[in-house]
Amino acid sequence: MSAAQEQSRRIHVVGIGAGSPGHLTAQAAAAIREVDVVLVADKGERVDELRALREAILREVCADGRLPEVVAVPDPRRGPDAERDATGYAQAVRDWHAARTDAYVRVIEELPEDAVVGFLVWGDPAFYDSTIRVVDAIGERLPTEVTVVPGISAFQALAAEHQVVLHRVGEPVHVTTGRRLVEQWRAARAAGVALGTVVVMLDGHLACQDLVGSDPDLTIRWGAYVGMPQQELRAGRLADVIDEIVALRAELRAQHGWVMDVYTLS
Amino acid sequence: MSAAQEQSRRIHVVGIGAGSPGHLTAQAAAAIREVDVVLVADKGERVDELRALREAILREVCADGRLPEVVAVPDPRRGPDAERDATGYAQAVRDWHAARTDAYVRVIEELPEDAVVGFLVWGDPAFYDSTIRVVDAIGERLPTEVTVVPGISAFQALAAEHQVVLHRVGEPVHVTTGRRLVEQWRAARAAGVALGTVVVMLDGHLACQDLVGSDPDLTIRWGAYVGMPQQELRAGRLADVIDEIVALRAELRAQHGWVMDVYTLS
Repeated sequence: MSAAQEQSRRIHVVGIGAGSPGHLTAQAAAAIREVDVVLVADKGERVDELRALREAILREVCADGRLPEVVAVPDPRRGPDAERDATGYAQAVRDWHAARTDAYVRVIEELPEDAVVGFLVWGDPAFYDSTIRVVDAIGERLPTEVTVVPGISAFQALAAEHQVVLHRVGEPVHVTTGRRLVEQWRAARAAGVALGTVVVMLDGHLACQDLVGSDPDLTIRWGAYVGMPQQELRAGRLADVIDEIVALRAELRAQHGWVMDVYTLS
Repeated sequence: MSAAQEQSRRIHVVGIGAGSPGHLTAQAAAAIREVDVVLVADKGERVDELRALREAILREVCADGRLPEVVAVPDPRRGPDAERDATGYAQAVRDWHAARTDAYVRVIEELPEDAVVGFLVWGDPAFYDSTIRVVDAIGERLPTEVTVVPGISAFQALAAEHQVVLHRVGEPVHVTTGRRLVEQWRAARAAGVALGTVVVMLDGHLACQDLVGSDPDLTIRWGAYVGMPQQELRAGRLADVIDEIVALRAELRAQHGWVMDVYTLS
């Protein structure tokens, strides 16, 4: 390995918020202005609105300077099937991350060694996002110097739009996925363990429908495209509003071609 | 009641991040620039650094315009005693909020009706902060028009500084307080309920010390003054690093007169 190959690659992992350019922090803007090349996973999906939004953020942040180059990195075949069992799921996630790592390392090795690489992450890199794990894996293959910038996550924007505090006085907040919601809810209930307010992310099927029978009086606070112009919010007793939310979500997805939503149960 | 008294009071509740001016979002900056009067709970404590930091944020955000007036509202006798039982604790919190509400209503009623009132909240108003509850209570006494702006919470800054994703693949994240930690941990463990990564806030006594005997191999990621110049981070096996963290926390508190810290267990 030549000496030149040992220069550390600077990588900024930047949380850019849940969809509103207003979520961008001063720290995130400063980090983006240092970036030469933004790497984006090209998933071959039609999410033109998200791409346009990301580019609008770049233009706004870099208004007085040059724009970073945006390089699409072809994403390996899609990630894990949410229907698998937990062990298979975790293994599938690991395989997928390894394939992504290979793809990113190949692209980074072609860049000038002093180029600052940026990953722009919707929401906060600390929540249900694989970028930090991928960057850790890149760091096992190349010398890297990594910076992470936190961002506003969708559930924070949701709480702000609903104007609520997430926790009840003295109670916890439990953040989970649609995939695990019902199982965890029932196990905790059976054991008398208080999960507190439950935040549900990554739930393409509104798994809370399965709780209507046992817990009709739960309050759901739901939002789609939170912080964006097309934002939709609904709140109420689970049994009263879940049908409307399910129908609205399907309608929005058909209309926009994609939907990002999040909700709380309390 | 005269017609004039019925004009809605505009109130902005603004999350300003965990201590770094870099955490401020564009949306928060815009909201602060609309504020005429910032109301601050005067707790009679010596937290000069926090006051100076808040004033620095105001000066930076309002560099091209007038600064909002900062009005200190005497805070009622301190909040609940963390040692009480759960019922007594919740009641004490409610009494304290009621007394604060009275104090704020008196101050707001003296302001011009078109004055925009701002509450600046460290971290995110959605997490372990009473401002939204107080503003709700003010809204029961005066007509109000409320805006809430989310902010970077200390545990997000902590995760970014440690460069970690909070959840393990497919697992939840559980946010709780030092007061409830040990009880919830043991109940969940006994019942086989996975809490996932546990984020512990408001823990003046590092309650995780009580878990060293049963769970020495937990990983703790701790930070004090996260995002601020005096930031301190420690991470490692709980049994290996907890004594150092306890000693360091006491030392920092003595040195600065106050300490804000947060940690995760996984």
